[in-house]
Amino acid sequence: MTNETLKKAIEQTAVAVRQMNPLVPSITNTVTINFVANAQLAVGGSAAMVYLPDEGEGLAHICQAMYINVGTLFPVYAETLPLTAKVLHEERKPWVLDPVAIGLGKMRTDLLTQFKEYKPSIIRGNASEIIALAGLWNLSGGSAVSEVRGVDSTDTVRAARDAAMALASWTGGAVAVSGAEDLITDGKQVIISKGGSPMMPCITGTGCSLGGVMAVYAAAADPFVAAITGAAVYNLAGSRAETYVKGTGSFQTAFIDELYTAQPSDIAGNPFILE
Amino acid sequence: MTNETLKKAIEQTAVAVRQMNPLVPSITNTVTINFVANAQLAVGGSAAMVYLPDEGEGLAHICQAMYINVGTLFPVYAETLPLTAKVLHEERKPWVLDPVAIGLGKMRTDLLTQFKEYKPSIIRGNASEIIALAGLWNLSGGSAVSEVRGVDSTDTVRAARDAAMALASWTGGAVAVSGAEDLITDGKQVIISKGGSPMMPCITGTGCSLGGVMAVYAAAADPFVAAITGAAVYNLAGSRAETYVKGTGSFQTAFIDELYTAQPSDIAGNPFILE
Amino acid sequence: MTNETLKKAIEQTAVAVRQMNPLVPSITNTVTINFVANAQLAVGGSAAMVYLPDEGEGLAHICQAMYINVGTLFPVYAETLPLTAKVLHEERKPWVLDPVAIGLGKMRTDLLTQFKEYKPSIIRGNASEIIALAGLWNLSGGSAVSEVRGVDSTDTVRAARDAAMALASWTGGAVAVSGAEDLITDGKQVIISKGGSPMMPCITGTGCSLGGVMAVYAAAADPFVAAITGAAVYNLAGSRAETYVKGTGSFQTAFIDELYTAQPSDIAGNPFILE
Repeated sequence: MTNETLKKAIEQTAVAVRQMNPLVPSITNTVTINFVANAQLAVGGSAAMVYLPDEGEGLAHICQAMYINVGTLFPVYAETLPLTAKVLHEERKPWVLDPVAIGLGKMRTDLLTQFKEYKPSIIRGNASEIIALAGLWNLSGGSAVSEVRGVDSTDTVRAARDAAMALASWTGGAVAVSGAEDLITDGKQVIISKGGSPMMPCITGTGCSLGGVMAVYAAAADPFVAAITGAAVYNLAGSRAETYVKGTGSFQTAFIDELYTAQPSDIAGNPFILE
Repeated sequence: MTNETLKKAIEQTAVAVRQMNPLVPSITNTVTINFVANAQLAVGGSAAMVYLPDEGEGLAHICQAMYINVGTLFPVYAETLPLTAKVLHEERKPWVLDPVAIGLGKMRTDLLTQFKEYKPSIIRGNASEIIALAGLWNLSGGSAVSEVRGVDSTDTVRAARDAAMALASWTGGAVAVSGAEDLITDGKQVIISKGGSPMMPCITGTGCSLGGVMAVYAAAADPFVAAITGAAVYNLAGSRAETYVKGTGSFQTAFIDELYTAQPSDIAGNPFILE
Repeated sequence: MTNETLKKAIEQTAVAVRQMNPLVPSITNTVTINFVANAQLAVGGSAAMVYLPDEGEGLAHICQAMYINVGTLFPVYAETLPLTAKVLHEERKPWVLDPVAIGLGKMRTDLLTQFKEYKPSIIRGNASEIIALAGLWNLSGGSAVSEVRGVDSTDTVRAARDAAMALASWTGGAVAVSGAEDLITDGKQVIISKGGSPMMPCITGTGCSLGGVMAVYAAAADPFVAAITGAAVYNLAGSRAETYVKGTGSFQTAFIDELYTAQPSDIAGNPFILE
């Protein structure tokens, strides 16, 4: 892939989801669930959120792509999440996993262990989460002990490069490591997406909602291009929003505005480095 | 009812809830629960949300009206929702049902089937949801198979007219079908509420929160007038907000502002057609 | 404590949390969970929310302080909340309790009864909630019957003075009563924090998120100073935000902006009376 073919693919993906309005349900945490839904709608998707096993399964059957975030686990997830992921895998539906707070609690570890088999099309997390997931799945670049601090990373994006590549090689999909710059890989190539804003980690949910938006794009593109398109629109929206806001409250509002108004050519024009 | 008596009733309802500050609890989905509460507060109500059976029952006893939305079901709802609806029905408290995503999963179908007996004062949904609910309750105009796509409608508002009238005739209350224009009926008369904005479906929760606001108005008016007043303030707020916002983020903020600042006479002046 | 030593302590606390970025997890209601997290981030904390027993316990072990709000209880809380509060108490970690809607439902009463033993470092509630909690714990100033109406108070802040002092004497921490003015006590001294805005109760979550913010400050100061600092930044942000907003939607956005931009010296300068 060259810079030009990638830019073209990003633009086409952004155009396509606005035409398709794909149904991209989520099973996600209650903290940022509203932000996830509004971000998905802002880029052209249709959102639907559930908790129960047969509802996750039912949406997996009819969706174009799906988003699973293990943020605020409920007891019923022990049944819902493996069942849903299994259907997505069997029907070859693209799905995005956010392994948020990996290492906290037994259920989270059990679920994330099971997901190895169901090969999420895109894994999106911060550096510490990506390193810990590679460790949990016994892949190279991983760490046996999670260095996740609550929901925050204690590692740099570049430090997660090997883990990200190993995860992507295992799934055959893509892995996106979020941070000051974003690293996205399909296990062979690595893209660094630039831009964004230091205000993005100052509100809750820029990571979660990015996973939801990558799932929307995964309905219209292969996982690698979908992940890159998601990172591009997020970095574009963040860099634009920070120029005219007063604080983090207005930043969140402006950020959704910028997702909504971002033109496909501008998304494709967000700076990146193809390593 | 004539245009003038209806306008007067709308204005009186909007004035009354600001004076009463009625307690209007909700059992509603986690996606838009914050939006529901803030919309209810913006028009003059007091909000309170719960999940547990004895809490739903307790609030049903002390509330002025209540809102039940079957969006993101939890296992405990199998007990909470029928118990709460039963108390509301027995004590003749007005309550609003939003049958969101009808057709998805066994519990949703079971709950919505049971609600037939407890006759919600107002049923609010999109066209496909209203048609599917009439079908589930074996009423005319209904469809045996839900055409709901996630949380979105695949039918037009007018296509749900017969189903809406049949549902309202059964409950003795009102039914509101949300869409590009809103249809509200008490089973005899039909009102079309105009205005609104194409941006309303571009954010999550305009439908859910409208149900919550109709419940607030139902504390001060009969179900038909309450549903019309809710549709009027929503269409007014939507049409005003869209004139000065940049995207869907600022639209949500402006929409709440417009609910909060809407004068009763302006709400009554929002255009409608009494068919 | 004199006015000047208190002002200095407030300023130091506000500075310290921005330097520490303490991990302050919450177990809180789904209505305002996003607002709680964003408010905590805006003043300099790191947020993380959970529901499961071993996750609450795990976060209690690694956190600097924690926030527990009994707003929308789930069945699993019967195990999660006592376990988490027990660890916090045993490890002498500061924690904030919000006894929202005390009196509603059996589980809420059971949990709040158990919390007496685990002595929350700060208790924050409206006047009716504070009076009811003192009653539940058989302390002076309390009432055997909750006068809470949904989530709203029916008592004035001053009416809760005795109950607040009795609660603080029992816990050895601080109690904050929120209202038109805020009363904070450590059982010996009483502070009245001024400012704020009549728009604060017109949005949902100013109370909940204040509890979360007090928990952030409790990671860097004793409970009394932490509670006062929280009340000060809230009253400052509210009084500033109301001057330029159109309604309650933009008020919430502006309020987070003002939390984020508030300078420590301005927080310390917010008017208070040391009684």
